[in-house]
Amino acid sequence: MKLVRYGNPGKEKPGLIDLDGKLRDLSSVVPDIGPAQLGQPGLTRIRKANPAKLPLVRGTPRFGCPVNGVGKFIAIGLNYADHAAESGAPIPKEPIVFMKATSCLQGPNDDVMLPKGSVKTDWEVELAVIIGTRARYVGARDALAYVAGYAVCNDVSEREYQLERGPQWDKGKGCDTFGPVGPWLVTSDEITNVQKLDMWLDLNGKRMQTGNTKTMIFNVAKLVSYVSHFMTLLPGDIITTGTPPGVGLGMKPPLYLKKGDVMTLGIEGLGEQRQEVVKFKA
Amino acid sequence: MKLVRYGNPGKEKPGLIDLDGKLRDLSSVVPDIGPAQLGQPGLTRIRKANPAKLPLVRGTPRFGCPVNGVGKFIAIGLNYADHAAESGAPIPKEPIVFMKATSCLQGPNDDVMLPKGSVKTDWEVELAVIIGTRARYVGARDALAYVAGYAVCNDVSEREYQLERGPQWDKGKGCDTFGPVGPWLVTSDEITNVQKLDMWLDLNGKRMQTGNTKTMIFNVAKLVSYVSHFMTLLPGDIITTGTPPGVGLGMKPPLYLKKGDVMTLGIEGLGEQRQEVVKFKA
Repeated sequence: MKLVRYGNPGKEKPGLIDLDGKLRDLSSVVPDIGPAQLGQPGLTRIRKANPAKLPLVRGTPRFGCPVNGVGKFIAIGLNYADHAAESGAPIPKEPIVFMKATSCLQGPNDDVMLPKGSVKTDWEVELAVIIGTRARYVGARDALAYVAGYAVCNDVSEREYQLERGPQWDKGKGCDTFGPVGPWLVTSDEITNVQKLDMWLDLNGKRMQTGNTKTMIFNVAKLVSYVSHFMTLLPGDIITTGTPPGVGLGMKPPLYLKKGDVMTLGIEGLGEQRQEVVKFKA
Repeated sequence: MKLVRYGNPGKEKPGLIDLDGKLRDLSSVVPDIGPAQLGQPGLTRIRKANPAKLPLVRGTPRFGCPVNGVGKFIAIGLNYADHAAESGAPIPKEPIVFMKATSCLQGPNDDVMLPKGSVKTDWEVELAVIIGTRARYVGARDALAYVAGYAVCNDVSEREYQLERGPQWDKGKGCDTFGPVGPWLVTSDEITNVQKLDMWLDLNGKRMQTGNTKTMIFNVAKLVSYVSHFMTLLPGDIITTGTPPGVGLGMKPPLYLKKGDVMTLGIEGLGEQRQEVVKFKA
């Protein structure tokens, strides 16, 4: 299933994209798409609904982040060997874990805002994993059973804040609007092999990132297992799993976002995002 | 006011400690102590209640984290000059910002659990700041107006996870039970000078940490202002502001927590905590 939350910010309703690509209103089945709906009982309830009988939504409403009530927005650093190389960093021996502020989560096509005075804001197309079931000290072999689904994420990053004003990266990773997720949460049953998904990001129509989840250093199962050894993962938690090569930081010379730039990005089977870059807005 | 949440985990009710130190039930006034109650309108509503008319709570119930629905649990590193020195780190030029997982929040007297196989779990008494009003790009001069109140926090840390398996600290900062907060949220009007509060931590009755908030490198107003330039602070967000000297990492040789240890800690005017250290519990 492709689950969405549509409508104005803060007033999103739950929805479903049917097999014809049409948006259907799920409000009569569930109050929202969030922690209470992402476990197997919740997903089963949604699955039992007949899409053809759900009301069609007219027009082309905005999509919000497809998950509400996210408790933790966890991120993995340098998880593609080529991206580690372009960042001038060694390949990690074990996953690098940091966190994005949950307040940076937003819809897939909402504007990305340059922080006041920022000159090094950068893009990162990533596969986001949405947890469905509480996971604590789970093994890699079982880990995917705890996943509700997947989504595209742009792990927008301010490199000066992250790297020159660190040493902790969180400062440059959680600025407002730095976490577009969606358009859909695609439930894991629809993804045959999560380690074989093409991904890409264009800046102003020019291809910048090209990758495939097969080149992850630590695969999704390993990451879910790994993180669950350091903190309990709860339904609705998001883990964004690192970016392939082609970010602005890795260009020679580096290239960063400016007002008016347009990012388009996507992952095979998970849909596409489009963000316009804007100056700080109060 | 001293606001609390009391009762069994996940079933806490809002309460208030009256001038005689007695626990009163606030359920008839507010449904909880959380983001919706921490702004000025919410606090004014509670302030209008006559404590003498609120039901006395019998017995000595457990206290939970005095804030529910925490969206971000932000932490500041190396914010006391002497602690930076004992950690072998230079004094930061600007605040170091990292994040603790919200899933590690717990009551002030709940057991602290050693992660499986952990051998370097450490203590850190800290002043926690609870945000009352949305704050974004606020100046230091105005910053305290966005604070609902203060609490004691033990920023429990696993040093191997944090430092040897980093480079990002979050991995060792957000393990389950690593965020005891409370016993009370003391509203800021009761704290005459937040930069003049004695603080201490005992391990098995022996004084380990002695400090005062006056030796912070960056004071509370500066920290709230600073963080608000990197992410919007929302009601209920917690910023824990760094620890004074005396942590286990700084001992020669280092001393870490083991099963059966008891930490007691407190801050002037904000009450005391007591945690017993236990092995991993499923």
